[in-house]
Amino acid sequence: MTTPSPQTAIRPTRAEDYPEWYQQVIKASDMAENSPVRGCMVIKPWGFALWENITRIVDARLKAIGVRNAYFPIFIPLNFLEKEAQHVEGFAKECAVVTHHRLEKGADGGLVPAGPLTEPLIVRPTSETIIGDSFSKWVKSYRDLPILINQWGNVVRWEMRTRIFLRTSEFLWHEGHTVHATAEEAMRLTETILDIYVDLAENFLAIPVIAGKKSPAERFPGADETLTIEAMMQDRKALQAGTSHFLGQNFARAQQIKYQDANEQEQFAWTTSWAVSTRLLGGLIMTHGDDDGAILPPRVASSHLVLLPIIRKAADQGRIMEYVESLARALRAVDYHGEPLRVEVDARDSGGARNWDWIKKGIPLRVEIGPRDLANDAVFFARRDRDHRDKTAMGRAEFIAKAGEILDEIQQRLHDRALAFQQAHTRKIDTVEDFYAYFTPRNKERLEIHGGFALAHWCGEPGCEEKIKADLGVTIRCLPFDENRFAPAPGKCIACGRQSPRRVIFAKSY
Amino acid sequence: MTTPSPQTAIRPTRAEDYPEWYQQVIKASDMAENSPVRGCMVIKPWGFALWENITRIVDARLKAIGVRNAYFPIFIPLNFLEKEAQHVEGFAKECAVVTHHRLEKGADGGLVPAGPLTEPLIVRPTSETIIGDSFSKWVKSYRDLPILINQWGNVVRWEMRTRIFLRTSEFLWHEGHTVHATAEEAMRLTETILDIYVDLAENFLAIPVIAGKKSPAERFPGADETLTIEAMMQDRKALQAGTSHFLGQNFARAQQIKYQDANEQEQFAWTTSWAVSTRLLGGLIMTHGDDDGAILPPRVASSHLVLLPIIRKAADQGRIMEYVESLARALRAVDYHGEPLRVEVDARDSGGARNWDWIKKGIPLRVEIGPRDLANDAVFFARRDRDHRDKTAMGRAEFIAKAGEILDEIQQRLHDRALAFQQAHTRKIDTVEDFYAYFTPRNKERLEIHGGFALAHWCGEPGCEEKIKADLGVTIRCLPFDENRFAPAPGKCIACGRQSPRRVIFAKSY
Repeated sequence: MTTPSPQTAIRPTRAEDYPEWYQQVIKASDMAENSPVRGCMVIKPWGFALWENITRIVDARLKAIGVRNAYFPIFIPLNFLEKEAQHVEGFAKECAVVTHHRLEKGADGGLVPAGPLTEPLIVRPTSETIIGDSFSKWVKSYRDLPILINQWGNVVRWEMRTRIFLRTSEFLWHEGHTVHATAEEAMRLTETILDIYVDLAENFLAIPVIAGKKSPAERFPGADETLTIEAMMQDRKALQAGTSHFLGQNFARAQQIKYQDANEQEQFAWTTSWAVSTRLLGGLIMTHGDDDGAILPPRVASSHLVLLPIIRKAADQGRIMEYVESLARALRAVDYHGEPLRVEVDARDSGGARNWDWIKKGIPLRVEIGPRDLANDAVFFARRDRDHRDKTAMGRAEFIAKAGEILDEIQQRLHDRALAFQQAHTRKIDTVEDFYAYFTPRNKERLEIHGGFALAHWCGEPGCEEKIKADLGVTIRCLPFDENRFAPAPGKCIACGRQSPRRVIFAKSY
Repeated sequence: MTTPSPQTAIRPTRAEDYPEWYQQVIKASDMAENSPVRGCMVIKPWGFALWENITRIVDARLKAIGVRNAYFPIFIPLNFLEKEAQHVEGFAKECAVVTHHRLEKGADGGLVPAGPLTEPLIVRPTSETIIGDSFSKWVKSYRDLPILINQWGNVVRWEMRTRIFLRTSEFLWHEGHTVHATAEEAMRLTETILDIYVDLAENFLAIPVIAGKKSPAERFPGADETLTIEAMMQDRKALQAGTSHFLGQNFARAQQIKYQDANEQEQFAWTTSWAVSTRLLGGLIMTHGDDDGAILPPRVASSHLVLLPIIRKAADQGRIMEYVESLARALRAVDYHGEPLRVEVDARDSGGARNWDWIKKGIPLRVEIGPRDLANDAVFFARRDRDHRDKTAMGRAEFIAKAGEILDEIQQRLHDRALAFQQAHTRKIDTVEDFYAYFTPRNKERLEIHGGFALAHWCGEPGCEEKIKADLGVTIRCLPFDENRFAPAPGKCIACGRQSPRRVIFAKSY
């Protein structure tokens, strides 16, 4: 990181104070804001459009493999949560509890809760238990299986320290839940879903991820196996970007999800669950954003480009606006990966503030049209992945023909840049000294960006994992799948020195 | 209504017991079921697909007029609800109140609520107050207006007597909220939205509706004007199918939504809100369903057609299934109003149960393919809007070419049938005796279907409206807009006999 430039649109810069830079980018890009309800966010249209695009991509891929959408109650009876021991441990601690179903005028004239419920209800932190209850009624025979269900909705986890998109008391997500007759089929589905998440991250969000499985300590409460994709943010911390859980027969036993097999024997089913959430929006900002604001990958961008008419004389207004509107129509007719280009027209006063608004929002292309461009039947455009002063003139027809190609180039460049960053900050580490030094800032400045992903040996003992977490706040992010990149050769555990079968990825994380 | 036929798939029939028929159709069609959480429903894939199709239609139309989606917190601080006097009256009575944010082990080892909140939170029954709080911060100048926001989500109203889709403690909806600089613009938007709802009901759900405005007593709590679309169910009761509210400056005053006008004078803004909900699914079932189950209008149908291979000999299986899969691919490539045809293949044992499953689910077309059809390169299809034994043979190529046309015919026929029913049970009534007789069953059988829409004069006095409601359980559904059909000639109030400017629609309602 270099000395901050006084010209950046976002202060502080990433190098100066990364967490505060993140908050300022969200504010400057107009994506979301804190709400008057503790820990809950308001997702504004520019941020919500990103989420809509993500949902459309994921939804189509889930439907293509036979998953069907459904909807289950937001409330979970208290006793449901208690059915699976690990699950209650994981989710009962911080949750929104509904205890009354009415408001009445109190002694001082204000409203007070009334109508106490006989059994309190929990606002769902996740729906395994309530959906499992339905599954236990729906599944009778092996002929009913598999059942592949997905739900788009909101969930609530009462978080003490919140940060927009990354950790909020309420967030949006999809949660998939499936039931299978065999462990093999359930595990295969768990992997298929992770492939969809890898595709989403790499090819749409332009976020390079490392896919792998979690150590037992980091698994979802109640899962036999948790698969994950881990991304590196620009402060070199890991962000868990999506997870797919093989739940074994744990929830089936807890909730009596049983089927008769072909031999008329009763069997417990095998279940899975999986999710990505609005947390991805935080990951997108922290992966691609720079000191001028957000940078949106074209494949999920809220809009692809903005047309900025440059009107210096009132007499020009009519013909420039006509040209701009006609260009907007032509661009909206362009097919970009099966969808129309998303085009904004911003006809506000053509000062620098307008241009900077769109830079901060991260729109991939800004297209200026002034009297000279009109005369040349041309446009003058700037790409958000390049310096903001770097502009290109291009004939109107050529620009319409090439817009998709330019957007694809931006998409690729964002991905490659993020991958290079991730690779530059991933290091094989073999001594405990190097390991501790890697995760400790060189000077005492609290905000110094340091560390990254450490590829180090782990013997498999929970104690070793715990010690590193306690000493450094560093956890095992995953046991990566990619054998080409992360060859699983044996070695010595970074914590205890005993034999280790393979390297795993350690990092600080969100 | 005729004597029930013993052959109907749904018992009781509509004539025997309409409310119970409704519950049985929902069960038989596999659209939804009651959940273990009081008053909340589980929307199963066959029902949820209808809702997804409705959301896609509405969402596209809202975006076309410049509405943008966003997301606001599910929780509303208690004091927010108190800001608008009528609003708190309307919604505080029955709502889910969150009072704690943690669970702890109690004395008996079970979980008990802990971590009491300093101020209780309400699970949103509607979002005027929480969105209004954001608007009060977002709106500064007339240049910021209009703001057109929509939210897709869940809301909770603690209902005592619930019925799936029609009245549930939690339901899904969209809620639009807009802010304008002038009353005229806000009113125009309120009307534009109602037009979208009319289009949705008439042209997609095939539900004929009467558009109009509500009497003051029937308005949304806090609204200056509520516009509505009212549909007639087959028990001749009205269903309010969508509402659009002109909120005047009431919420703007309560929540300090102010802007500086062009003369730098501070003004209160004008706001609107509007919604349709999963209640529409209940309306769809009750409008079109028959004694054999649901009937889905093709434009919103969960699926358009099902292919049913008829395999009598194991030797035929391979070539029949190959033919069926090839036909499914060809049909899925057909463009039906801009979307691919939605095609199911049901290869279960070809007994009568399979056929009846699809009749009960209401799929528009059932297509059988057996060895003889294969030999003739033909299909054998049945339409859900006709008698279930009425089947048509058609060549494969012709069927593929005509499928869209056949579906459009079904769509039109469902609409026309429902409109004829509504017209047959809408009556001009001019004497109080006729009015009371119309809304009173002729014999004492509790379940007899009777009444309908009464076009009667009303003087405008709340007292007259109240008396009719108290006597008969009949309310004013709307003051209809359509002057051709409901000519607003003066007359005498049905309740008090005084002068009345126009007829209004009275009915019993859901």
